[in-house]
Amino acid sequence: MNDVIFDRVALIGLGLIAGSMSLAMRRAGVAREITGYARSQATRDTAREIGLVDRVCDSAAAAAEGADLVVLAVPVGAMGAVAAEIAPVLKPGAVVTDVGSVKRSVLEAVLPQIPEGVQFVGSHPMAGTEHSGPRSGFAELFDNRWCLIVPPEQADEGEVRRLEAFWAALGATTERMDPDHHDIVCAVVSHVPHLIAYTMVGVADDLRRVTDQEVIKFSAAGFRDFTRIAASDPTMWRDVFLTNKDAALEILGRFTEELFALQRAIRTGDGDTLHDYFTRTRAIRRGIIEAGQDTDAPDFGRAKKSV
Amino acid sequence: MNDVIFDRVALIGLGLIAGSMSLAMRRAGVAREITGYARSQATRDTAREIGLVDRVCDSAAAAAEGADLVVLAVPVGAMGAVAAEIAPVLKPGAVVTDVGSVKRSVLEAVLPQIPEGVQFVGSHPMAGTEHSGPRSGFAELFDNRWCLIVPPEQADEGEVRRLEAFWAALGATTERMDPDHHDIVCAVVSHVPHLIAYTMVGVADDLRRVTDQEVIKFSAAGFRDFTRIAASDPTMWRDVFLTNKDAALEILGRFTEELFALQRAIRTGDGDTLHDYFTRTRAIRRGIIEAGQDTDAPDFGRAKKSV
Repeated sequence: MNDVIFDRVALIGLGLIAGSMSLAMRRAGVAREITGYARSQATRDTAREIGLVDRVCDSAAAAAEGADLVVLAVPVGAMGAVAAEIAPVLKPGAVVTDVGSVKRSVLEAVLPQIPEGVQFVGSHPMAGTEHSGPRSGFAELFDNRWCLIVPPEQADEGEVRRLEAFWAALGATTERMDPDHHDIVCAVVSHVPHLIAYTMVGVADDLRRVTDQEVIKFSAAGFRDFTRIAASDPTMWRDVFLTNKDAALEILGRFTEELFALQRAIRTGDGDTLHDYFTRTRAIRRGIIEAGQDTDAPDFGRAKKSV
Repeated sequence: MNDVIFDRVALIGLGLIAGSMSLAMRRAGVAREITGYARSQATRDTAREIGLVDRVCDSAAAAAEGADLVVLAVPVGAMGAVAAEIAPVLKPGAVVTDVGSVKRSVLEAVLPQIPEGVQFVGSHPMAGTEHSGPRSGFAELFDNRWCLIVPPEQADEGEVRRLEAFWAALGATTERMDPDHHDIVCAVVSHVPHLIAYTMVGVADDLRRVTDQEVIKFSAAGFRDFTRIAASDPTMWRDVFLTNKDAALEILGRFTEELFALQRAIRTGDGDTLHDYFTRTRAIRRGIIEAGQDTDAPDFGRAKKSV
């Protein structure tokens, strides 16, 4: 049992991340009361039914009123509007954070709404599954995962540390980053890989010479990893690309440039270029295994399933 | 214990696939003697040291002589030369197969070398790991995996069935396919996804604004699945792209076309196009889970690792 870090925590949005936060907060005992709000009546009903938070409110302001920590857990494109809605009721001394995958645009949308005496500090818990909605959360989601902490300039150091302690209590390892660097790192390790996976799955789906049934049957040959990351929440990912446009387009430009070089090597039969390129990429994989971010078990740590 | 299907089996090449075949053959008891040959002296020494096969020979011909089944387990680009080398010693009534990831070019390279009275039938076991070499094999590699069987025209039906029974005894589920269809299906589900993964890993490695350390630390955000498939054997993959050029270039062309459409949607802020596309790709993922080719556990079936 940790000590209480925030007396009352309000979760605005009750999807995978917020639901998992509620369960992880209870596991750690870091909050005395957890309130919650979701825009959809069905989500609020489900949250009440399964007791996801202590009190489900019928407006974002009602949930945020009197809270010591307010977590904006809505798609990135909705952050500014939600911040404006709760601003009038925010308690002096409260901390507001978000859990969005993009940071520059969230800071720009949210900071102007935050009243004096309230501290906003961005969070980005790098954890997720392909599932969404109030029933998809689980207390272990953040265990041993990174949570990037993105304070605005002149943030109060004490409040930033308090938020870091909060995420650590939920199981995450925190690291501070400035918003622009955050957005380019995430474009490389997450946003563009997701876009590429979506595209490859779309190509397979369109190709009439190969049936859907064949794509599915033979997916273990490499394609499965693409479908895994292409199944995430469409609204969340739409907003990521609309709000992290510059970094995403920069990385996409580099990607297509390199892909065309390899495509040319295939067309011209330049085996040396292909071999050199494929040799170089092995090193990063080794680094990931050494960093403990994956397993090198022969079956990649997957449970064997019968077909 | 199965019945013996081939009295003597010769493995030409002693890497991950051949090594796993030897261990799986012993587990199933489908061969009385297993001979083997590898081009590299070091590989032959290791194979002798660990007893990977019953008898390690110093030439491909010595291993193949008198064998009832000869398995060509070398990179696709080397198949024709190996077939020519062993052709003079092949036993009448023998079956020759390969384990290459491409089939049209293997048939074209190998078939002209096969003497009368010997039957060639292609195999493609769709199983692998990122490891290679004689120590990387394990008996379970083919369990519940597909093995595509690609008979040439006018193949002897009895011998094709015998080869199917052999792969089934090694744990695989077989399916017959004609060579051209095989090559396009594999371009979609395996070859192009691998090329894309290699490219994305290369981009990350090149990007000086994001350190290698950051790419590795935050890889769980999606990028890890790319490095997983980008770590396979460079020689094998070079040969795949050189020999399945037409299908790979066709699928790559479709991929870049779709990627550019999404890139344009990002640039113009067209959220509807992005949302529609991302929604459509979820269906294939659901299909893969329903087909039992992956797990829908919240952590994707991965063991949790500390960082």
